[in-house]
Amino acid sequence: MSEKTAYNVAVVGATGAVGQKIMKILEEKKFPLNKLKLLSSKNSAGKELTFAGKTIIVEEAKPESFEGIDIALFSAGGSVSKQLAPEAVKRGAVVVDNTSAYRMDENVPLVVPEVNAEDIKEHKGIIANPNCSTIQMVAGLKPIKDHFGLSRVIVSTYQAVSGAGAKAVAELEHQAKQYLNNEEMEANILPAGSDKKHYPIAFNALPQIDLFQDNGYTFEEMKMINETKKIMHEPNLSVAATCVRLPFFTSHAESVYIEVEKDGVTVQDIWRTFENAEGIILQDDPSTQTYPTPLSSANKEEVFVGRVRKDLDNDKGFHLWIVSDNLLKGAAWNTVQIAQTLVKNNWL
Amino acid sequence: MSEKTAYNVAVVGATGAVGQKIMKILEEKKFPLNKLKLLSSKNSAGKELTFAGKTIIVEEAKPESFEGIDIALFSAGGSVSKQLAPEAVKRGAVVVDNTSAYRMDENVPLVVPEVNAEDIKEHKGIIANPNCSTIQMVAGLKPIKDHFGLSRVIVSTYQAVSGAGAKAVAELEHQAKQYLNNEEMEANILPAGSDKKHYPIAFNALPQIDLFQDNGYTFEEMKMINETKKIMHEPNLSVAATCVRLPFFTSHAESVYIEVEKDGVTVQDIWRTFENAEGIILQDDPSTQTYPTPLSSANKEEVFVGRVRKDLDNDKGFHLWIVSDNLLKGAAWNTVQIAQTLVKNNWL
Repeated sequence: MSEKTAYNVAVVGATGAVGQKIMKILEEKKFPLNKLKLLSSKNSAGKELTFAGKTIIVEEAKPESFEGIDIALFSAGGSVSKQLAPEAVKRGAVVVDNTSAYRMDENVPLVVPEVNAEDIKEHKGIIANPNCSTIQMVAGLKPIKDHFGLSRVIVSTYQAVSGAGAKAVAELEHQAKQYLNNEEMEANILPAGSDKKHYPIAFNALPQIDLFQDNGYTFEEMKMINETKKIMHEPNLSVAATCVRLPFFTSHAESVYIEVEKDGVTVQDIWRTFENAEGIILQDDPSTQTYPTPLSSANKEEVFVGRVRKDLDNDKGFHLWIVSDNLLKGAAWNTVQIAQTLVKNNWL
Repeated sequence: MSEKTAYNVAVVGATGAVGQKIMKILEEKKFPLNKLKLLSSKNSAGKELTFAGKTIIVEEAKPESFEGIDIALFSAGGSVSKQLAPEAVKRGAVVVDNTSAYRMDENVPLVVPEVNAEDIKEHKGIIANPNCSTIQMVAGLKPIKDHFGLSRVIVSTYQAVSGAGAKAVAELEHQAKQYLNNEEMEANILPAGSDKKHYPIAFNALPQIDLFQDNGYTFEEMKMINETKKIMHEPNLSVAATCVRLPFFTSHAESVYIEVEKDGVTVQDIWRTFENAEGIILQDDPSTQTYPTPLSSANKEEVFVGRVRKDLDNDKGFHLWIVSDNLLKGAAWNTVQIAQTLVKNNWL
């Protein structure tokens, strides 16, 4: 184990939306940096980015880029991670990967620090950052599970376009302008850039995120189902998901039905649990119309929970509304949290 | 019983969004009219509206307006219905009321013709049109219940602003323009015009529709829960709802989890049931990205169903995505369907 107090960190995909957020957080949180290396595709190499008042030139990510790097934060798409993460590991770096490439690999811990930080210890070079919609949900479910047990989860999501990348953000903005000008909307990206058909997202709702799987569920839905079980160490937990893309820019919202194992749990019990939970902010007061929304949660690190209600028929059933910034807790902030946990515990 | 073949019909709230749609449908469907009377508040009285090429002057709705009227279609808010529907009944009219004023009154049938047309027969002068989000859901649930039994319903809604009236539609449009011009958004109407606080709906999601009740559920959620049980004659059916307002103009979408009573039901069984169901159009083919959306369902009469999936843990559990135009099947068309059923069966 190293006794370092400052680290050489590489951000792969530095020019992307999540890469930019990662840099901002590394700076704000005063991450113990010795050197920061910014990597990207060939196209973006040569760009100048500012970090802590200094200019850093972005370099093309290659296997040899990772020489001397302690921690590599990958956010440049699954194919880049598949190709370069093993190269980084070979050169002694620990990779925190923000793509779906390694999430279900049994040798790769899949981590939300508030939920399963200890899993980081078992890493073999790569630690995966879960899917954005999964992260905020398991952050909300963890305190419930610890206090009352958890047997069932049914989630319907309300997901922001930024989860589909900068092109989807531009598409929503462009389509909204077209619609308001009575022009026909052009659709080229959503629901999934790599799929055959595209539908307008502005003033619409698309019940497809990512590609359809053979079982009729989308990949996003299967990510939520499988990742939740893995992160929570609950292979038999019943989890179902319906994922829907909506016309807003930032923060995913989730309508979550859960069943706890304990009898007689009250809404007040659940509130108290959330009030004491790390990384969670309870915003739940019907008398003052207090609940989180995508707009109110944007640019914030925490996971916001509101609309806690007991099911009217099932004593063990509860309904929750969970909202968080999909680019922060859903991506950049969770990635940096994993890196923080690595260095704080000397688990590199 | 009358032997009439043409009827004197009054539309109360003729200048409103639903009133206008009702007039359009009466004309398109060639409803057997003898005379059409258009009624409104004092403010809108005197306006000239066109019906079947003729100009009709809107009159102020008063108790005596209903003299000689056979059928009065009310869509002018709960307080107008409470005041004037009994006056219309007193004068011999049958009222189809599109507000929440009488829905849970045990003497008033609450009707979606595809589900419980026979209930119309029991009317005592007033028949209630259910809440928009309820109508499309029970239309989808009815064939399931008939073929496979139904024990549980958990719905999360994705609701259009037009359900909150013309002012909410204008507000979304105005806020969207403000946002795209980098101006601060003004919020004066949503989530509920009569509530204390207002939040922007453009590029946002509001988990509040109508006012909060003492139990922490909103009135919209309680409407879905209670109306579903009444319409389906299933007082013990387990129904839960989370209702969310979203930034689109027309059509509500619903992510619905159901549990059937029969074992071994397949997705194909459910598809077949929907294909043969009255008023339902199945749009469900993942291989061609076929599913209904709010935009694709707008201005159509039917209820559209897609994304039918079997739960991965519960053999009796299924997930559905139900979409319909909230102003047509959710309001105007269902109202006219009730009136059609009244005259066709001579149940006036």
